[in-house]
Formats: sequence, C-alpha cells, structure tokens
Amino acid sequence: MLDLGKRARAAAHGLGLASSEAKNRALAASAAAIRAQSHKIKAANDLDMEAARAADMSKSNLDRLMLDDKRIEAMAKGVEDIAALADPVGRVLASFERPNGLRIERVATPLGVIGVIYESRPNVTADAGALCLKAGNAVILRGGSDSFHSSRAIHACLVEGLRAANLPEAAIQLVPVKDRAAVGEMLKGLGGNLDVIVPRGGKSLVARVQEEARVPVFAHLEGIVHVYVHGAADAQKALTIVRNAKLRRTGICGAAETLLVDKAAQAQLAPLVKMLADAGCEVRGDEATRGIDARVKPASEEDWSTEYLDAIISVKLVDGLDAAMDHIEHYGSHHTDCIITEDKAAAERFLREVDSAIVLHNASTQFADGGEFGFGAEIGIATGRMHARGPVGVEQLTSFKYRVHGNGQTRA
Amino acid sequence: MLDLGKRARAAAHGLGLASSEAKNRALAASAAAIRAQSHKIKAANDLDMEAARAADMSKSNLDRLMLDDKRIEAMAKGVEDIAALADPVGRVLASFERPNGLRIERVATPLGVIGVIYESRPNVTADAGALCLKAGNAVILRGGSDSFHSSRAIHACLVEGLRAANLPEAAIQLVPVKDRAAVGEMLKGLGGNLDVIVPRGGKSLVARVQEEARVPVFAHLEGIVHVYVHGAADAQKALTIVRNAKLRRTGICGAAETLLVDKAAQAQLAPLVKMLADAGCEVRGDEATRGIDARVKPASEEDWSTEYLDAIISVKLVDGLDAAMDHIEHYGSHHTDCIITEDKAAAERFLREVDSAIVLHNASTQFADGGEFGFGAEIGIATGRMHARGPVGVEQLTSFKYRVHGNGQTRA
Repeated sequence: MLDLGKRARAAAHGLGLASSEAKNRALAASAAAIRAQSHKIKAANDLDMEAARAADMSKSNLDRLMLDDKRIEAMAKGVEDIAALADPVGRVLASFERPNGLRIERVATPLGVIGVIYESRPNVTADAGALCLKAGNAVILRGGSDSFHSSRAIHACLVEGLRAANLPEAAIQLVPVKDRAAVGEMLKGLGGNLDVIVPRGGKSLVARVQEEARVPVFAHLEGIVHVYVHGAADAQKALTIVRNAKLRRTGICGAAETLLVDKAAQAQLAPLVKMLADAGCEVRGDEATRGIDARVKPASEEDWSTEYLDAIISVKLVDGLDAAMDHIEHYGSHHTDCIITEDKAAAERFLREVDSAIVLHNASTQFADGGEFGFGAEIGIATGRMHARGPVGVEQLTSFKYRVHGNGQTRA
Repeated sequence: MLDLGKRARAAAHGLGLASSEAKNRALAASAAAIRAQSHKIKAANDLDMEAARAADMSKSNLDRLMLDDKRIEAMAKGVEDIAALADPVGRVLASFERPNGLRIERVATPLGVIGVIYESRPNVTADAGALCLKAGNAVILRGGSDSFHSSRAIHACLVEGLRAANLPEAAIQLVPVKDRAAVGEMLKGLGGNLDVIVPRGGKSLVARVQEEARVPVFAHLEGIVHVYVHGAADAQKALTIVRNAKLRRTGICGAAETLLVDKAAQAQLAPLVKMLADAGCEVRGDEATRGIDARVKPASEEDWSTEYLDAIISVKLVDGLDAAMDHIEHYGSHHTDCIITEDKAAAERFLREVDSAIVLHNASTQFADGGEFGFGAEIGIATGRMHARGPVGVEQLTSFKYRVHGNGQTRA
C-alpha cells in the first residue's frame, strides 16, 4: 500500500502539468475502451454477482452491483461528459495589482492524491477515476470486495485511456487485492502520500472514515433534510415542492426527512399530510399533526434525527421562523434545508442563518446534486467546512497557488 | 479543555451571524482597551520578562517577549487595521443561473472554531484573536507559558471589546492555566469542537502540530526559498532582487536561502557572489562557485535543504530551466520561489510548473506576506494544498455555502 502511495505521488507531479488535451484524450480513450470491452466487464460482473448471490446479498445491493449494457453505456457516457467539462486547473481565480506594480494571480492547481473508498457500485471506479483525472489529481481507488472483479475490468479500461494519452498509469490505481487492511492504511494517509479521502457508500463506511482518517475527508454522514413551510407560503408551491422533495426519490441524500409547518400556515397542514399519505408516504407526526389524519403515526424523539431514506416523513408544527431554525440547528445535519414562503425577508433570514451546505428558497431539496448545480458531475456532497462544501465537482478537487508578476520590485 | 471547546462551538454559532458593525465595534473597543490598559499590559509583561531572565532566556527570545509603549500601540493599531478590512463573511463568491431558473449563489461563511498555538510573542494574542473574530470564527488561543501574563492582559482587552459589542465572550478564549496538556488536547480536536489549528512559532512547534494534529493545520514547516537567475536575466535586476530577497530581513520565511544561477548566466555569478559577500553574507557554493571568490565556503549536500534564517546563502550553478526546477522540486519546501529573466516564455513555464504556494517573476521573495499581497493581515503562510495556501488572511479563514433561489422548481 505504501508503494501505491509513492507511485501515486510521483504520478501526481506529472499529471498536474498535463495539458487539457492529454487529459481529455485519456478520458475519450477510456470511454471507448469501456464500450469495446463491455463483454469483459459483464463477464467480470457475472463473477461478482454469482458470489454475491451465493453470499445471500440483499436485493437492493445486488441491484447496485449489477452491470448491464445500459449501465455500461451510461458509464462510458459519464466519462465523456467529464472530458467535456472545462479544465478546472489553471483557472485564474483572482487577479489584482498592488500599488508597487506587482500583478498577483491566484490560479487553480490540482489537489494532489485523492483516495476514494467505495462499496458495491462498480461504476464509481469510472466516475471517480475520471473526475480526479480531469482535475489533475492522482487517485487510489478502493472498491468493495463484492465488486472487485467488475471494478478491475473497468479500471483496466481507464488504464488503457491513460496509456493512449501517454499519461502515467499510476494516475489511477486500484487497490490490487481484496486487501482488508487497505482501508486502514489509506485512513492513515499512506505515509503522507494521500491528501484527501472521499468515502462513497453507506453510513457505517462514512462514519468509520470520518472517525479514523488522519487526512481530510470530503463527505456527509447523513442528510437530515428539512422543508419548512412558512406562514407566508404559497399553498400550491408547498404541496408541489414537499411532494417532490420527499417522494421523487426517497433513497438519495437530498430527499426530505422532516416537514416543519408554521403555526401561521396551520391550514396547509391537513392538505400536506393528506397528499403525502395518499401518495403512500408514512407520516409520523407530533401531537398537532396526529389529530389531522387517522393515518398519521406518532413521532418519537428519535424521528427528528432519523434519515429514513424511505417513504417515511416526520412532521412537526413550529411556532415561527426562529423555532423552525432552532429545530434545524438542533436536529439537522447541515446538509440541505429549504424554506417555502412568499415573504422575501423571511427567506433571506433563513438562507443567511441556517448553517447548511445548501439552503433553498421555494425549490425542491432534491436539487442537492452536482449535476443539478451545473457542475457536470460530483464525487459526493460534503458537509464539512474545510475546502469543499456541498456538491464536490471538479473545481472543488483543486487547490491554488499565487503567481506574482514583477519587473524588478524589491520590498522596502 | 473540552468545556473550552464546547463554549467556543456555541459562541461560533452566534458569531457567524454577527453583523459587520458588531464585529468592528468589538475590534474598535478592543483596540481602545489595549491603549487604555497599556500600564497593566506592561506590568504583566514585566512579570514574564523577570521570569524569563531568571530562566536565562536567550536575547532574541527576550526581545520577542518584550512589550513597550511602541509595540503596544502597534498592536492596537493592528486590531484597528483588521476592523477596517472588508467583512469576508457574506461575500458572494460565485453566482449562476440554471436553465430551470434556479439562481445559485456560493456565499462565504465562517469556518467555525480555530485553535492558535503560539510561543513567546504575546502580540499574537491580539493579532490572531482579531483576525479570527473578523471572519466570524471563535478562537482558542494557547500562548507560550513564557508569555502567559502578557497574553492574559491582552486577552482581557479583547474580552472587553466583545462585551462592548454584546458578542459572546467565548468567541476569544485563552487557555486559562499554564496547562501543559492543553496543546495535546487541542491537537486531538477538543471532541470535534476545533476545526483547524494554526501554529505560530519555531520549526519544532510546527513539526509537532503537523505530525500529531487530528484536525487540519494551516502552516508551513520551513521556507527553503530559491531565486533562480535564468540565462536571459537582466544583470542589474538580478543583483537588486537577490540582495533584497536574501538580506532585507534574513529571519523571515520568505527570505531566500538558495541562489541558482544558470550556466547561460555564468557571467553574473561573480558579481552576485561579490555583492553578497561584500554585504556580509556568508556564501556556501558548489564547485563552480567556489572558484569565483576566495570568501566562498564549500556547500555540503545538507546546505541545499537548510533554511538558514540568517545571513548565509547556498549558491549553485544549474544547467537550464529544467535543472533549476528539478532542484527546487527536490530540495524545496513548496513555499516561495522566484525566477529572474527577461524571457517571457521561460517565466511562464517557471510560474506554471514550480509547485510552490507563491511563485514570482522578477520580484523579491520577501513579498511573500499577506500584508504585501493586500490581505491586510495574515495569520501565517500555508504550504498545504487543503483550503488555504500561501498567505492566510481573513478570506482564507472562511468557508462557504450555497444559497438556491427558486420560484417553485421541482426536480424531474
């Protein structure tokens, strides 16, 4: 593992200086290889699926693991989409001139070496590999042992792409064996050769990485996402947004988990609860909510801090904007929170005072996604405050340096 | 110590929402208190100085520790200068509109809780406290035990400022006793209540913090700063810049430590060495350099990676731009490096390819300083690639969040 780290660091140096053209050529060749070798990828995936079935893997995990032609094509297309993004390296982030004539530019540079630890989805191999490469970073990929054969077949396509563009093969490395100790060594930072770790998977993986990592982590542990229907909310917007925020997809981190309805909007509570229950969503309410519909179950204290990732929602009546923000501060996860209101001042206060990576006014929380933000692709959503926050796209996978242009200036 | 962390976290929440006016009022009142209580500060400093003399502290450390009217006035003025800076919180860093009409803003927010660990200079108490407050962060200050009485007297002035503006007193906390275990506990992150640590002091302090900290660190271990005289360098500029870069002040991190002269500029070697030796600088040269002036001492392998912080310089003849950049990559510290040349293409390559926080063309490396960059003040210079790099001013002490403005949008 330490050798892997050293090779990554060496590759990162050259990669940071690679031209956009070379990086894009590698990505295009990788996508072509994924298409050309789809039979090999499927054969590798068959091995993983067989083993998983023999090990009685759950249906939802089997679905995450499975690759078919459609998914392989989507993977190749994803790599091409990343190639089509603007190069984040070399962007001039700021430029200013000093009274002594010095012109100073802050310019984006790669971050260095990124470690990605993921679970059963083998397509992360292509996504994460391509994103890191685009930003000029070397990456060490550690996929789940369940998806090892699939990931290895996909990784071979990425290496083919690197070769085609004369980029160092160590730019995208896959931890080569089903090495159980590898995660622990990555968390320790591979002797200073790992700059950041991105965990992609369930809560227990993220929790372990956040607790044990000695290097920075871009991640979120959970998305306890709130929609707050303010007293001045438009009733129709509230119905539409709450439905979409909770039910469009229930398993994503931007899905709403708690609905807060202001006492001043109490009339909207019944139609909101009816809409949700009619749509098959289990509603767990506080006292005020329970009286409204026979289908409402009682919410326990635990419900307010539970990420269901399912067709379940907790509903609470709150007394004013401050009470809503207090609830979010106390129970939330600083991920994504939304206010529905026609009152601009209330919206501005909510957007300013709620300390979450993403705060929305009159829009579904399911927009919490790098693609929806226009970032092209994301490696995840971060709730930490260091370096990256919110959707982590290629721009957040860069650092910067200062270029100072002089004509002989000395300091007095 | 854990209680200190909890109090800081609680204070940070309110502080993040404080108005610019309140923060500036606190800073103005702090500066006024520093002036009004200068007799108390001097009395406290006398205690520290007495103990230090009794403990045979070195002359240079005694000078660092000493406070007089001039230094106290400079400290008060420094706090006022920070008050006069633009508020870094709330800046709109990016703003874009999506095809569905969503308007997304990336807005600067505070980082959270910052720990500052410093040594004998008591004025860091005021500088660091004021910088963190300006950026809306709570700060935990851990000064050297040598300067404890002085720091406590200065800290009392800052607390007076916070009170005058009705800001939480726990926004700026000083570790209250000569607690030897405090540093260790801060390095562990105070139970998740410390977001970043800034060490201010000598190499051994920085090394310990970088090795042991479980939270991100903004720092540089050393500044092995290079000036490279390219083949197309203007001889007069080279003389002026090298002299300033090495000798203006020798004890700062931006002072040059190694001079690389290109073979194509070999004619400049003798005048450069003569200028340095005449100015009282010890020159340690490679073979080519040693023949040039009887005063040149031989450089050992160790010299190329030594930060002298003194009137000593290592000098080497290199064969071309690539050799110069290889030397810098191998021996450098990614802090600050400079090329002197009239060849624009060579300058652009150097600025692009040298992987240092600050790269300069035809300007003294002693400009490596937040004040010289126009940042108003700095808490230090960072050579890491995470979050902050180069001079760390108030803007680098912030994070960001996304504000999304909609009018009823839902995700398809």
